[in-house]
Amino acid sequence: MTTINLFDTTLRDGTQGEGISLTAEDKLKIALKLDALGVHYIEGGNPGSNSKDIEFFRRARELNLSAKLTAFGSTRRKNSVCEQDANLRHLIESGARAATLVGKTWDFHVHTALQTTLEENLAMIGESLAFVKRHGMEAIFDAEHFFDGYKANPEYAVAALLKAKEAGADWIVLCDTNGGTLPNEIGEIVSEVALKVQANIGIHAHNDSELAVANTLAAVAAGAKQVQGTINGYGERCGNANLVSILPNLQLKMGYECVSAEQLAMLTSVARYVGEIANVHLPVNQPYVGNAAFAHKGGIHVSAILKDSKTYEHIAPELVGNKQRVLVSELAGQSNIVSKAQELGLDLGANANSRVVIDRIKELEHQGYQFEGADASLELLLRDASGDTVEMFAVESFKIMCEKSTAGMLSEAIVRIRVEDRLVYTVAEGNGPVNALDNALRKALVQFYPGIADIHLSDYKVRVLDEKDATAAKVRVLIESSNFKDTWSTVGVSSNVIEASWEALVDSIRYALLGMARSELSPDASTDSVGLVNH
Amino acid sequence: MTTINLFDTTLRDGTQGEGISLTAEDKLKIALKLDALGVHYIEGGNPGSNSKDIEFFRRARELNLSAKLTAFGSTRRKNSVCEQDANLRHLIESGARAATLVGKTWDFHVHTALQTTLEENLAMIGESLAFVKRHGMEAIFDAEHFFDGYKANPEYAVAALLKAKEAGADWIVLCDTNGGTLPNEIGEIVSEVALKVQANIGIHAHNDSELAVANTLAAVAAGAKQVQGTINGYGERCGNANLVSILPNLQLKMGYECVSAEQLAMLTSVARYVGEIANVHLPVNQPYVGNAAFAHKGGIHVSAILKDSKTYEHIAPELVGNKQRVLVSELAGQSNIVSKAQELGLDLGANANSRVVIDRIKELEHQGYQFEGADASLELLLRDASGDTVEMFAVESFKIMCEKSTAGMLSEAIVRIRVEDRLVYTVAEGNGPVNALDNALRKALVQFYPGIADIHLSDYKVRVLDEKDATAAKVRVLIESSNFKDTWSTVGVSSNVIEASWEALVDSIRYALLGMARSELSPDASTDSVGLVNH
Repeated sequence: MTTINLFDTTLRDGTQGEGISLTAEDKLKIALKLDALGVHYIEGGNPGSNSKDIEFFRRARELNLSAKLTAFGSTRRKNSVCEQDANLRHLIESGARAATLVGKTWDFHVHTALQTTLEENLAMIGESLAFVKRHGMEAIFDAEHFFDGYKANPEYAVAALLKAKEAGADWIVLCDTNGGTLPNEIGEIVSEVALKVQANIGIHAHNDSELAVANTLAAVAAGAKQVQGTINGYGERCGNANLVSILPNLQLKMGYECVSAEQLAMLTSVARYVGEIANVHLPVNQPYVGNAAFAHKGGIHVSAILKDSKTYEHIAPELVGNKQRVLVSELAGQSNIVSKAQELGLDLGANANSRVVIDRIKELEHQGYQFEGADASLELLLRDASGDTVEMFAVESFKIMCEKSTAGMLSEAIVRIRVEDRLVYTVAEGNGPVNALDNALRKALVQFYPGIADIHLSDYKVRVLDEKDATAAKVRVLIESSNFKDTWSTVGVSSNVIEASWEALVDSIRYALLGMARSELSPDASTDSVGLVNH
Repeated sequence: MTTINLFDTTLRDGTQGEGISLTAEDKLKIALKLDALGVHYIEGGNPGSNSKDIEFFRRARELNLSAKLTAFGSTRRKNSVCEQDANLRHLIESGARAATLVGKTWDFHVHTALQTTLEENLAMIGESLAFVKRHGMEAIFDAEHFFDGYKANPEYAVAALLKAKEAGADWIVLCDTNGGTLPNEIGEIVSEVALKVQANIGIHAHNDSELAVANTLAAVAAGAKQVQGTINGYGERCGNANLVSILPNLQLKMGYECVSAEQLAMLTSVARYVGEIANVHLPVNQPYVGNAAFAHKGGIHVSAILKDSKTYEHIAPELVGNKQRVLVSELAGQSNIVSKAQELGLDLGANANSRVVIDRIKELEHQGYQFEGADASLELLLRDASGDTVEMFAVESFKIMCEKSTAGMLSEAIVRIRVEDRLVYTVAEGNGPVNALDNALRKALVQFYPGIADIHLSDYKVRVLDEKDATAAKVRVLIESSNFKDTWSTVGVSSNVIEASWEALVDSIRYALLGMARSELSPDASTDSVGLVNH
C-alpha cells in the first residue's frame, strides 16, 4: 500500500480562521493529540510573525513528538539576502525539523502583490530554500496560488517549482490558495506537473467552493504523496481542507495507508478535542465525526438499520471512533425507542413498562418535546422508567424577578430544593433570569455535589412551537451542557420560557449528577468524564 | 449553454436533518424564496407521511409558484396494488405537479430491508410510476442507493432504471443515499448509465464523505441534467448536497445555465433567510454565502486585496450577493444603508447625519444586532435619525416576576410608561414573562391607541450569540408581528433575555403605532395595513 503523508497545519493556517485563537499552551495540547493520531508533519506556526509561536516551538522540543515539527515562513524579501532576513533567521532558530517556505508561482501575484520581477521572485525561491537546507532543515516549498498561476502562465509556474527542486526542496506543495479550482482541473494539472517536475508533490487546498476534500483526493489520485489540511477544516475564509474527512477517505475508501487502525479509531475524539480547545462548536452534521454523522431519524431507515447497519451507513462508525445513534422524533416509530433503550443497556423488552414509556414519549412529543436534540432528557426518561435512577434533589419552588429601571437591569432567582431530608433555600443574581436560576440552583447543590462546578452550559436555544400567538405560545428550550470532555443536551417545554428553561436546566444537572453517582461506584473511572454519555 | 435543473428538497429531505423542524407556515415562506431564486423543482414534503405536509400542499396551491411543486413518496407496498396504496393516493391528491417516487435498486436492500423478491421490486417500480403518470403528474424516479447497487449488481440496478423509464418516468435520479461514493466513481457510473438507459438523468448526493458537492459536479460533467440538494446542505446525518455551493460552481465555474444573474445575486440572502427560518446558525465559513467567505484576516492578504481583490478571492462576492470584509468589524455595507434609506424616501444623502447613522448601525451589528431579519427595527433607526418619527410613548421602568410553586406557574409584569404628559402604570399576567410584558404594555397603550388591539406577535426566536457561556451570554431575540395583512420583524440584544425581548417588543409596537399614525393623515389608506412593510 502506498503511504500518504499527513501534514497538519491547524496550528498555523487553522488559526487564520475567524474566531480561532490558540494560546501556546493550547497549541502544545493539540500537538500532542495530533502526534497520537499519527500525523506525519505538524506545522506549529510562523516564528517570524509572533512571539507566541516562538514560545510554542521552544516548549514543543520537550514533547518528543514522533511527527516532524514544521515552522512556516515566506521566501526572503525582495532585493535582499537570506542571511539578513529576520523571518528566515527565526525559522532556522525555531528548532523545528522542517521548514515550509511559501513563495509566488502566479505571475500576476509577482507583479501585483510582490511588485517585483519574475526573475527576482525565482531568485527569492531558490536562495531561500537553499538557505534552510544549508541549516540542516527539511525543506517544503509551498507554491502559493499554483493552480491559478499554472492556468495563467504554465511555463513560469513550473519554472518556480523547478527552481525550488534545484535548491533542494524535499517537497513541492501545490496550493489552491483561493480555493476556486475544480477537482478535474486539480487532477489534470497535478498529473502534468508530476511529469514535468519529477519531485515529491503535496497538495494544499482551501474550501471556498466546498471542494477542498475532493480536490485533495483528486491530487492524490494524480500522484501527490502529501496532503495538507487542518482538523475540522479550520482556516481562513471557508477554511482549509479538512483532514478529518480526508484521512478516512484515503484509508478506508481509496486503499492508501496513512495511520494505524487504532489511530484512525481516535479520529472522532481528536476532532472533538480540538474543537473544545479552539472553543468552536463542532457541527452535529460533520462527516465521520459529528454527533449526527451516524444518526438515523426516519422510521424506514431505522427499521432497516436494525436489520443491517450497512443499509444506511457508508462505513462502520467504530472505524473512526464514532457511534450509531437512533433519533427519536415525530417521524420515527416505536422501533427507534426500543433500540435506543438497547443502546443504553436497558431492557424495555416485551413487558407492559415498555408500552407505558413509549406512550409517555409520544405524549411528550405531541406536547412539543423533541428528543432528537435532547439525548440526555430521553435517557433520563428511559432510566426513570426502568427504575435505574435515584432522586438526587427535589425542587419545591422557585421564583425569579427582573427589574429594569434607570439603574439598569437586575435579575434575581430564589430556589427552594430538598436534598435528602435537608431543605436548601438560596438566592442568586444573574445576567438574566435563566442565568440567575442556574446560579441559584448550583449554589444550592454544590455543597452536596462539588463536581457540579465543572459543568457549564454551552448552548441555549428557544423555539416557539405554535406561531399563532407567539409570546403566549408554547416554547421549547434546548440546553447543551459540557464538562471538560463530554456534551449532553436536554429539553424543556412550557408556555412559559422560564419554566421550560428550568425544566431543561434541572434535567441537565440531574443527568450530570447521575453520571457522577455511577462513576463513584466504578473505581477505575476518572473524575472528569465518568458516566456521561459522550455524544 | 446547457441548462441544469435545480431540484430543491430542503422542505422534504432537509427536514430529516437533526434539529431541523419546519411548520407548514415556515415551508410556505421558504417555498416563496426558492421560487424567487429560480429553483426549477420544489419538493414540498411527503403527503403520505403526515398531515402537516398535506396542509402545506393545500396552501401552496395559492402561491402560484413558477417552480414545479413536487410531492415525495415511495413505490407501492409489496404484494399490493397502487389503487389501494394510501401513500400513492395522497401523492395524487396533493395537487403537486410532479411526484418523486423512491424505489430500491440495490439487490441487498430488496432482500434485507424490503424483504421481497427482485421481480416484485421491479413490479413495484413500474406500476407505481405508471400510476402517477396516469394521474397526469410528471414522474421522477429516485433510484435509492443506486451507486452501491450498481457496484454490487449492475445488471439489476440498470434493470430497475429501465423499468422506471418504460413506465414513463420523466427523470431518473441516481441517489448516493449513504453518501459513501467517491467523485471518480460517480463520474464513471453516470457515464455508463447514461449510455445504457438513455434517459434524463439526475443526481442526488449526500455528504457523509464531505464530497456531496464534488459528486454532484462529477455527475453533471458525466451527463446529469438535474441536481438535487438542499439549501445550506440540510439533511439527514451529514446532510444533502448543498445547492448553495452547487449553483455558483455550475454557473460561474463550469459554464452551465441554471438561473439568471439577478437570481444568483440573491443566493446569500436566500441561504441566510432559510437558516433564520430553520433557526440554524449559518456557519461563518460556509462557502460563497458565509459571513467569512470573503473575509480577510492575514495582514499580507489584506494588503494584496487592497491592490486587487482577485489576489485572494476566487470570485467577486457580489455575484452571489455576498461581500468582502476586510476589517474585523461586522458591518453592513454603507451603500446598503444608503439605498435602504432611499427606498424609504429618507434622505441620508451627503450630510453628517448619514455618517452618524452608519456608525450607529455598525456599532449595533458589532454588539450582535442583525438587521437582515429585522427590517422594522432598521426602518425605525433610519426614521429616528431623519427626524421622521414622533415619540408615541416613553418607557420609565418595568418589572417581571415569575413564581413556580405547587400551585403552578405565575407570571406578572408591571410597566410604567409615559404617553405625552400622562404616567401610566399597569400590571398584567401572562403565560410567561414576555407575554405578561406584552399584555401590560398593550393594556397601558390601548386607551390611547385603540388600533393596537389588531396586532399580535406571530413569532418569537431566541439565539445565543456567544456560545462560551450560554445562559450568561448575549442573546438576540427576533420578534415577528402581524396585523391582518402585514408582517414586520424587530430585534433586541442583551445578555438578559427579558431585556432583549422587551426591546424587540417596544420596537414592534412603536413601528405599528407610527404606521397607524401616518395612516390617519392619509385619507385613502385603510387602517389595517398602512405603513407596515410587508416582507
